[in-house]
Amino acid sequence: MREMFEVTSRTEVRRLPARAIYDRAAAHAILDEAFVCHIAFVGDDGHPVAIPTNFARDGERLLIHGSPASRMLRTLGAATPLCATVTLVDGLVLAKSAFHHSVNYRCVVAFGTATAITDLDDKRRALDVIVEHIVPGRSADARAASDKELKATLVLALPLEEVSVKVRTGGPLDDEVDLALPAWTGVVDIETRYGAPPDAPDYARFYQRPGRTARPSP
Amino acid sequence: MREMFEVTSRTEVRRLPARAIYDRAAAHAILDEAFVCHIAFVGDDGHPVAIPTNFARDGERLLIHGSPASRMLRTLGAATPLCATVTLVDGLVLAKSAFHHSVNYRCVVAFGTATAITDLDDKRRALDVIVEHIVPGRSADARAASDKELKATLVLALPLEEVSVKVRTGGPLDDEVDLALPAWTGVVDIETRYGAPPDAPDYARFYQRPGRTARPSP
Repeated sequence: MREMFEVTSRTEVRRLPARAIYDRAAAHAILDEAFVCHIAFVGDDGHPVAIPTNFARDGERLLIHGSPASRMLRTLGAATPLCATVTLVDGLVLAKSAFHHSVNYRCVVAFGTATAITDLDDKRRALDVIVEHIVPGRSADARAASDKELKATLVLALPLEEVSVKVRTGGPLDDEVDLALPAWTGVVDIETRYGAPPDAPDYARFYQRPGRTARPSP
Repeated sequence: MREMFEVTSRTEVRRLPARAIYDRAAAHAILDEAFVCHIAFVGDDGHPVAIPTNFARDGERLLIHGSPASRMLRTLGAATPLCATVTLVDGLVLAKSAFHHSVNYRCVVAFGTATAITDLDDKRRALDVIVEHIVPGRSADARAASDKELKATLVLALPLEEVSVKVRTGGPLDDEVDLALPAWTGVVDIETRYGAPPDAPDYARFYQRPGRTARPSP
């Protein structure tokens, strides 16, 4: 049996529910492939803000980190409700009609409040997890954080509890009446490639996101 | 003279202000290269949400669109404050110390409220702008929206008034005391590549984002 997220009023996908998944494994795969999320929260002035930041998945929680001088991290560390959204864009879907053009994507939306990790050993481990999430293999080479640097870093954990996943794959879905139109239809694949100079260690030179199998060139 | 955005309390970048730009041309270049934004708003239940969506720049405004059945679009169409954030990630910056690892990125954050475009001719033009923004060349080939489809599409415009741009470029900035450490330092470049089958028209087969010059392989 697969482990599922409980569906709440917030995570229930009402628009195009066929694209919705509430499966932890599906969420984990997207979160492991990505390393940037957008965090939405309400600022001091009551206005919503979306800010990009790096993250790591650590089991059933998301870790984010930064300077204690960051307004966002200070706000979120005070148990301010947040939404962390992770989006991977896989293709542009070209249909016969402009109306049915679409995008293939995979998206995780996680709601909740984050908690600061205060214990220095936990924090040290969390920072290793973040480095390893973003550049697998790097934490063995980089100098680990000193106690002073640890204290100068705010690390927040968001439990993965209220989460939805939305995925679109495949080609265009045209109206039958349009099928005879001459326009080409299909998918423009989108792929992210990584490169580092020849003197870089293998984990940088042949950098690839985990779980990502290279697609054949079109 | 370059046209600048007026800096407000919301758009003033307090953290690492050296990375901040308030230049319209810099914002336009990022917005023209990207086609996905994350929109933050406060939902009916008072909780912030960040949702990815396609967008286009149309002069000094952002256009987003979708079904009138979309909760997000209905909420935003009712002049709900929003934040639209566009992020491009260019490289992973590997420093001697874990602490100084960083990411090269370009990010536009736009605050404001959106207005629905109701005039059918304006809407038709706006939808062409969106298709052309996402797949330049496509609007001539795809069947344009019928009146029925136009009515079944909500198009919102966000004026680019309260906007900040944040950019990081270049290599790692290590502490001098760490420079003798053996770890390799440098940047893992990130590049997005696009591909479509050989029978696709040139705008799909050789798809590239405007303003994007291919970087030499490392």
